[in-house]
Amino acid sequence: MLADIITLFPEVVNVPLGSSIMGRARDKGLFQFRVHDLREQGMGKYRQVDDEPYGGGPGMVLRPEPIFATLEPLRTPQSRVLLMTPQGKPFKQEDAVRLSKEEHLIFLCGHYEGVDQRIVESCVDEELSLGDYVLTNGAIAAAVMIDAIVRLLPGVLGDDESAVQESFGESGLLDHPHYTRPAEWRGIKVPDILLSGDHGKIAKWRKEQALERTKANRPDLLEGK
Amino acid sequence: MLADIITLFPEVVNVPLGSSIMGRARDKGLFQFRVHDLREQGMGKYRQVDDEPYGGGPGMVLRPEPIFATLEPLRTPQSRVLLMTPQGKPFKQEDAVRLSKEEHLIFLCGHYEGVDQRIVESCVDEELSLGDYVLTNGAIAAAVMIDAIVRLLPGVLGDDESAVQESFGESGLLDHPHYTRPAEWRGIKVPDILLSGDHGKIAKWRKEQALERTKANRPDLLEGK
Repeated sequence: MLADIITLFPEVVNVPLGSSIMGRARDKGLFQFRVHDLREQGMGKYRQVDDEPYGGGPGMVLRPEPIFATLEPLRTPQSRVLLMTPQGKPFKQEDAVRLSKEEHLIFLCGHYEGVDQRIVESCVDEELSLGDYVLTNGAIAAAVMIDAIVRLLPGVLGDDESAVQESFGESGLLDHPHYTRPAEWRGIKVPDILLSGDHGKIAKWRKEQALERTKANRPDLLEGK
Repeated sequence: MLADIITLFPEVVNVPLGSSIMGRARDKGLFQFRVHDLREQGMGKYRQVDDEPYGGGPGMVLRPEPIFATLEPLRTPQSRVLLMTPQGKPFKQEDAVRLSKEEHLIFLCGHYEGVDQRIVESCVDEELSLGDYVLTNGAIAAAVMIDAIVRLLPGVLGDDESAVQESFGESGLLDHPHYTRPAEWRGIKVPDILLSGDHGKIAKWRKEQALERTKANRPDLLEGK
């Protein structure tokens, strides 16, 4: 997979995608990314990329020309252009799964009040939102989505980091609680059942815990089940 | 506000929080952050921070001791400890508003399968999830939440970046579309009404557009209205 990211803040994307599991995935050739500084296509002496909104109001809006000049040479018949915006459809695990099957994703990161609507209508395939909150810019949102997508690519996660038994996985439940060494820590013991060696009972306990936790924290996930 | 972040990947937090609006907020003394490398409290020659889960299964779990040794000296009567985990309550704009009134937030970033449940039960005030997707680690989730929270602190956003008229703001609707110069771009014109100078009509048009967009992309936001 190739990910192109268009942003005013290249380092905000470069660093997380070059670190840890993402960095290793790139080193192994499992995915590639390229970060494009929108400012390079800025207009005039000050490389301006934004201007005041028509109709008045606070904030600045990203002009269409610098975005188009950056985006157009990157597009191919296989590419899919995603705009990071709180106006979009909420990004979920099922979107990560779906997008992990694409060959080429282009992430367009908003900033200030947003991007000129003509860009959205003529160049963007999908508007996606990280969640119901507002960020200073879309670069970090792109880094999060790429992390969620790339970790699903074959070979990216080792056995130690398995993507199977986890929240929002096949069960549709939150994950069960985890315990590790020491067996007793500051007077608090690991639940006996986890030390019992009885795998049937452990599996049953974990399922019950996952269900209980989902009921407590995310009853919405159980609707319609 | 002071934000402490405990993570295995300091740079993933350091860079976004040092850039752009967040970097300026820090330079102006509006907020401070400190990043703590969990590995420094790792155990033994290899500074181990994780171990296999009791009861079997894939993945590694963060041990309680290194977390406790990092966290305990940071806690004060004013501090609030937040765990980044897909098991948590979904973080929303109202949480950003609420947490922006705190003096001291401590962000504990998970990795691998998660953290030992005894840490969650004895040290964590709140479990928060960035959204319904799974990430390779919680560091980037902490960076996103801090961005959403800090931009609400007084003085962080200039007039150009006003936090009032926006998605999930007082209206509870998605934002209306934005347009800026040029008035005609690649044959597509800005809607006439925005050039009319009639502020009453513009306000009405924007409200209709916001409502229409919310109906199309986020009908859930309109429930109960």
